[in-house]
Amino acid sequence: MANGRHIVTTRTPTPADLPAAQTAFRALVDRGLKLDLTRGKPAADQLDLSNDLLGFPGRATFSDAAGTDLRNYGGPAGLPELRALFAPFLQVPADRLLALGNSSLTVMHDTVVHALLSEIPGAKRRWVEEQADTGIAFLCPVPGYDRHFSICERFGIDMIPVPMTPDGPDMDVVERLAASEPRIKGIWCVPKYSNPDGAVYSDATVRRLAEMPTAAPDFRIFWDNAYAVHHLTEEEVEIADILAECEAAGHADRAFVFGSTSKVTFASAGVAFFGSSRANVEWLQSKLAKSTIGPDKVNQLRHVIFLRDGDGLRALMARHRALLAPKFEAVDRILTERLGASGEGPGEWTNPKGGYFISLRVPEGCAARVVALAKEAGIALTPAGATHPYGQDPEDRTIRLAPTFATLADVEAAVDGVATCVQLAAAEKAV
Amino acid sequence: MANGRHIVTTRTPTPADLPAAQTAFRALVDRGLKLDLTRGKPAADQLDLSNDLLGFPGRATFSDAAGTDLRNYGGPAGLPELRALFAPFLQVPADRLLALGNSSLTVMHDTVVHALLSEIPGAKRRWVEEQADTGIAFLCPVPGYDRHFSICERFGIDMIPVPMTPDGPDMDVVERLAASEPRIKGIWCVPKYSNPDGAVYSDATVRRLAEMPTAAPDFRIFWDNAYAVHHLTEEEVEIADILAECEAAGHADRAFVFGSTSKVTFASAGVAFFGSSRANVEWLQSKLAKSTIGPDKVNQLRHVIFLRDGDGLRALMARHRALLAPKFEAVDRILTERLGASGEGPGEWTNPKGGYFISLRVPEGCAARVVALAKEAGIALTPAGATHPYGQDPEDRTIRLAPTFATLADVEAAVDGVATCVQLAAAEKAV
Repeated sequence: MANGRHIVTTRTPTPADLPAAQTAFRALVDRGLKLDLTRGKPAADQLDLSNDLLGFPGRATFSDAAGTDLRNYGGPAGLPELRALFAPFLQVPADRLLALGNSSLTVMHDTVVHALLSEIPGAKRRWVEEQADTGIAFLCPVPGYDRHFSICERFGIDMIPVPMTPDGPDMDVVERLAASEPRIKGIWCVPKYSNPDGAVYSDATVRRLAEMPTAAPDFRIFWDNAYAVHHLTEEEVEIADILAECEAAGHADRAFVFGSTSKVTFASAGVAFFGSSRANVEWLQSKLAKSTIGPDKVNQLRHVIFLRDGDGLRALMARHRALLAPKFEAVDRILTERLGASGEGPGEWTNPKGGYFISLRVPEGCAARVVALAKEAGIALTPAGATHPYGQDPEDRTIRLAPTFATLADVEAAVDGVATCVQLAAAEKAV
Repeated sequence: MANGRHIVTTRTPTPADLPAAQTAFRALVDRGLKLDLTRGKPAADQLDLSNDLLGFPGRATFSDAAGTDLRNYGGPAGLPELRALFAPFLQVPADRLLALGNSSLTVMHDTVVHALLSEIPGAKRRWVEEQADTGIAFLCPVPGYDRHFSICERFGIDMIPVPMTPDGPDMDVVERLAASEPRIKGIWCVPKYSNPDGAVYSDATVRRLAEMPTAAPDFRIFWDNAYAVHHLTEEEVEIADILAECEAAGHADRAFVFGSTSKVTFASAGVAFFGSSRANVEWLQSKLAKSTIGPDKVNQLRHVIFLRDGDGLRALMARHRALLAPKFEAVDRILTERLGASGEGPGEWTNPKGGYFISLRVPEGCAARVVALAKEAGIALTPAGATHPYGQDPEDRTIRLAPTFATLADVEAAVDGVATCVQLAAAEKAV
């Protein structure tokens, strides 16, 4: 990629690199790019994979296997066939897996709402009362998912950052904090191909989460298994079964499991899932019964007809992978070409086996500057700090790259431009 | 209908009528009916009217008029074309009408949740704080909709019954209460073809609701216009424009308008709407932004293609009416034949021009007995008291009849059976 417009700095820049970095950046700006790596959205060619859904279930098809008319009210737990299809992938027994609306984010949000406004199993009082008294808090592995943090911020739930490792959150920290204060009520987890690191929780991490003593009797793991089937390599990475581990540890009610088809079929017209212990499922159902007379079961039927079974789901995800893997490979290749191997020069990045994101770490104090430079060059990146509670990355180092939505050519151009911005920001910092 | 099994009592029963009434009831039980008039669900032949939806939008159709890909995240306000289509029917300007998920009940529930957990425009503090301090309450016109009452009960919001009249809630009572206490935060209204009376709010009622002084600066009218287009006669009954009246009265933020296609297309796979003042809409959108990345816009597109425009919607509702009007007429005819004209004998019932329900008033202290007798005879009725807060009808007089879901023949058999039960309960009471 080294040519008249580009420089290659496979080592940490020094003040001497500044003039060349500035020249390269000016050339980048002159290209007048308009590119976007901000959000983890599927691309149009991925959505095309599910276009059969647009004609399903078909004019004469509106019953489930039991003969229930799915066009009418009812069926609050969702379509049995769809629950059975997703149960093994989400590691939840089908009879404790609910198929709900079009957004797992909504289910997570609403679960927090219901815990605030009514006692969850094991709670001594409603979280809203505890909040008025001592405040309540969630543990937030960082870097993490900004929309999880937004739910906490919206409801005034304090956020306590916990460092991520390649095996999941630093469990020494998690165990110490969870045991210390009853006001710590939960932890946000994306256990497989985490957002944004792509980390996969090790079996030991899962077991320690299940087994650890918590000061709060109503502590909950919000297990957002958003990328359960979203593999980028031939390896279908598996994680330990959180519900089984919690049950074995005598903490059957500890985990809430969430999932969805948002990045399987259509991002706004899919199906969300909730799974947990019998007591938790009954608790949530009793609350949902006051707000709905049943989910959109016709859309659930559409999904059953389209996906057919576990093999159908696997085959679809393989087609997603064929479209996505080249984009992720391009990010790694171009960053390596322009910045040296990960961790060698001014950049360090993840090379995930699945999921939707790459986490790029730049020299301390440079992330916001890189994002600002990229913006000047017409490349939209997720705001620096978005991966941390309150948008505050204390080291100002983490940038989330989302290469799925743009075309391969745009991803290549954008990442090449990001590398130029990293070089300039690092050279400026070295001065 | 008078035959060997039936008696006709077109006057209030006396003790002398008891033996015949008992004989008639035993004959009814012997028929071994299994009928259900409990819920306001559309019947299968009504759902069939919208079966084209099951194949829409079709394999190659997934964009709105502006070219937005509706399969992806985004579009939190909903599909512009669908909002424009429903705007005149719900009397909300399209730019202040949101098209959301599959249930207006959910939107009502969530609006209460957000008012509990964050200040609504005009509020001095969150309702949850006011609740911990003085308690909060809603005015509940009775008889009314049990699912409205369930939302209040679930969140510990006190319910204050207000009598219904044929013109809407008794406004002398509403005005006195609303002006009296700042803890009274809202009123539930089904302004057109009310559940279960079928009452239509008069223009004067709407204007007084809009104009009345309220002790609470954050008082809200929950305007559940569930039956906006659900006419049972040739007359398309119109009501005054609550948002315009509120604005004219200087209370622009007073009303939340709700609606849905649940009884237009599919009861579980339709679209819900929310409309209000600019400030209220922005408030709700800012809250929804934390819980969703957009509604199911593909389903909204399906509805636009299917309904086409206002005339398409009117034509569909005319086909519903052709199926429903005979059922409502049968209830009125059979009750008249068996009990005398409404109010003359032991029964008094409504003859609504639209909506989904008929309200049957029986002699004081008889409603629960009638429902129990009907159950014994295999006829499921909505529990007596369900039309009142906490399930408590102090006079024990109101029974909600829901004739839409059953076939015409079943409606006829069920209502004839109900008349027998009314006669027996009234004769027992006379003893």
